[in-house]
Amino acid sequence: MKEIRLGICGLGTVGGGVLDLIKSNADRLYDQVGAPIKVVKIGSRSKKPLFHDEEILFYQDVLLLADDPDIDIVLELIGGVDIAQELVRKAIINGKHVITANKALIASHGAELFSLAQKHSVSLRFEAAVAGSIPIVKVLRESLSSNKISCVAGIINGTTNYILSEMAVSDRSFSDILSEAQELGFAEADPTFDIEGIDAGHKLVILASLAFGIPLSLDELCVEGMSQISIADLKSANELGYRIKHLALARLVDERIELSVHLALISETHLISRVDGVGNAIFIQGDPSGETLLCGPGAGAGPTASSVVSDVIDLARNLIQEQADQVKYLGFSTTAIKPRGLLTQDEIVAPWYLRIEAEDSSKSISSITDILTKRDISKQTIVSRAIDTSSKKIEIVIITNPSSAKALFDAVEEISRLQSIFGAITKIRIEDLPSCT
Amino acid sequence: MKEIRLGICGLGTVGGGVLDLIKSNADRLYDQVGAPIKVVKIGSRSKKPLFHDEEILFYQDVLLLADDPDIDIVLELIGGVDIAQELVRKAIINGKHVITANKALIASHGAELFSLAQKHSVSLRFEAAVAGSIPIVKVLRESLSSNKISCVAGIINGTTNYILSEMAVSDRSFSDILSEAQELGFAEADPTFDIEGIDAGHKLVILASLAFGIPLSLDELCVEGMSQISIADLKSANELGYRIKHLALARLVDERIELSVHLALISETHLISRVDGVGNAIFIQGDPSGETLLCGPGAGAGPTASSVVSDVIDLARNLIQEQADQVKYLGFSTTAIKPRGLLTQDEIVAPWYLRIEAEDSSKSISSITDILTKRDISKQTIVSRAIDTSSKKIEIVIITNPSSAKALFDAVEEISRLQSIFGAITKIRIEDLPSCT
Repeated sequence: MKEIRLGICGLGTVGGGVLDLIKSNADRLYDQVGAPIKVVKIGSRSKKPLFHDEEILFYQDVLLLADDPDIDIVLELIGGVDIAQELVRKAIINGKHVITANKALIASHGAELFSLAQKHSVSLRFEAAVAGSIPIVKVLRESLSSNKISCVAGIINGTTNYILSEMAVSDRSFSDILSEAQELGFAEADPTFDIEGIDAGHKLVILASLAFGIPLSLDELCVEGMSQISIADLKSANELGYRIKHLALARLVDERIELSVHLALISETHLISRVDGVGNAIFIQGDPSGETLLCGPGAGAGPTASSVVSDVIDLARNLIQEQADQVKYLGFSTTAIKPRGLLTQDEIVAPWYLRIEAEDSSKSISSITDILTKRDISKQTIVSRAIDTSSKKIEIVIITNPSSAKALFDAVEEISRLQSIFGAITKIRIEDLPSCT
Repeated sequence: MKEIRLGICGLGTVGGGVLDLIKSNADRLYDQVGAPIKVVKIGSRSKKPLFHDEEILFYQDVLLLADDPDIDIVLELIGGVDIAQELVRKAIINGKHVITANKALIASHGAELFSLAQKHSVSLRFEAAVAGSIPIVKVLRESLSSNKISCVAGIINGTTNYILSEMAVSDRSFSDILSEAQELGFAEADPTFDIEGIDAGHKLVILASLAFGIPLSLDELCVEGMSQISIADLKSANELGYRIKHLALARLVDERIELSVHLALISETHLISRVDGVGNAIFIQGDPSGETLLCGPGAGAGPTASSVVSDVIDLARNLIQEQADQVKYLGFSTTAIKPRGLLTQDEIVAPWYLRIEAEDSSKSISSITDILTKRDISKQTIVSRAIDTSSKKIEIVIITNPSSAKALFDAVEEISRLQSIFGAITKIRIEDLPSCT
């Protein structure tokens, strides 16, 4: 019987997890595929791994696996963009099917790689590139493929979600929790990609392509980090019935698309607001599917390996029948992938949360509300309270009715110039996501 | 270019929803498949529908569609078992691919139908048979296919979940809410299949086959209805930090499987406990995927049509490449599907919730605890309170540590014979599901 031969490139957390899974669940894989799945070669730039397996050959040059005649499928699990791209291109040109967990590679070079893969009639799969074991790529590409998608909103970065959830329950500062997350292995030594929303942005670009059939592109994506968040904001949001999450959002607005990673207040009655810790969740609104939510672990060796190997099984099921992959790379036919206009940040219309520290005087509040009223920004809720009686400092929290970001940003700019205002003003969008239960 | 020609059998809620989707999202379907998808014939036992479409021929005898040379895929959306089975068998024998939304048909006759479909080299798909637009069939069969699944726990009947959620918030009785649900169209005129857990049982059998590779069979399934639930139980569960849900559970216990539909207390910190109304949710624990949760609408024309048409797209993607379906009916190779021992209800070990109404005397509680202690059932929590001071009646709520159902049922039997006890004793399992975030 034919066996499916894999070459694993990269033996870090994910590569190690994939190797473990294929060994420990070999019977399960056989039952699903009807043929053995074997890791025949491993490429890793680091030293030879500690395990000993006579059936697996080891190479320090990962590129050697890209034209190895013994390998049916190359697994690109090295991460980064440069060598990964070279490896994937070379493997495709040599007629290998490729599976990658590399969101940066797909988001930035996916279009070109898919086109190359199509030319060489090979598969290029990437389920593990977004949200760990949550099968969001297949769900968008196959399960919800008949739907007009209007919104995909995700908590798709475990590090930022861990920091926000811990801050909300523990009264400790952003930097405290970040250090703790680094110790626990939930945050990188350099956490910039996570807390600045770049990692979530890469994943969002992939989700938006799958949902809307737009070309993969990092251009015009609005990305806002989350390190400016304070415990005071988390608390006042909570008191008003909201939770603050770092959200990646792709939404159809008229015939254009909003693509943005930003902090958002979400009603505590929405299930996604309850997704805490390193958990990921993705909310999808489709017509006629309605509102669905998928939650699960967004990272880690096991969950990521689960998704990588689901791609292996899909391709193996094709290979043993000597069939081509039946689904296009992004679900859509190549000719159906078309750019659409993207909303600029200024054009976004939403209710807003504002928190302002000001002098405790009747004039403070009236000056602020005058500025908002002048720009047609109406208030849904306004709450003020003393935060420091000796210095006569108050905190004013305002929830606005929906208004354009341009009007709101201008108003905040003007408010910040008032004499009676202390420090920076917090402004966070409120996402009124439809309920999924 | 080749077009994919469908015959829809049954034009009720689901059939109507599928027809609507295919017409209104025709462009989206074309973009996903690269060829037009057309409904060419409709069979419906009822009178001719009101719509007029010259391209669609209408038949009152659904069986005529089963050997119609114009049709590539037969959609069985008539429901029930007898005619549906005849239709599906006939279509398969005539070499048609079949898509069905019929859980009762798949749960009771799936094994035989899959075997017939394999013999005739056709596909038989059933994504819409479980949980509306939640793509649980594909997720188990393809996305989590590499995992050893240890638990699938679902809220997979919208009617019972609506009744339980409404009772919990409104203080109204089971029968009140049921009548309301019938008026709103959330419950059938004869709700027996839903409230007795039979509908959930059909779906559970399908989920268990997909998760564990056991043959489809309704034998030995433990099904418990939910009409005995009282507002008093919902309230005291709530006070102890739990919510009560009607759960369909398939779990690996040693090398055997527990299959059961039953009322369960679930911690309010678990996301699945927050799934209210007609919403459905399915929790899956896999190794190494970890804990995932999928939520969404479990019924209705649109959500069910979304799943039916996802199967249409899958098959259409194969048909335009003239390829066979790459996935086996239940994911597993035919030879890998093997029966496993099932747990009897007596063997289940769990913590339990007991609510007992008794005379307000020191002896009441001690007699009860004596009976529990005698059977090695230890108590985690015991709360008592007056419910009627004039008649000196108290309510005693006990949460036990894990104990076997046999020991607990025997103890409850003995307690119910005590002179100091009034009425029936409530006993509900506590499901300690691992967190999915």
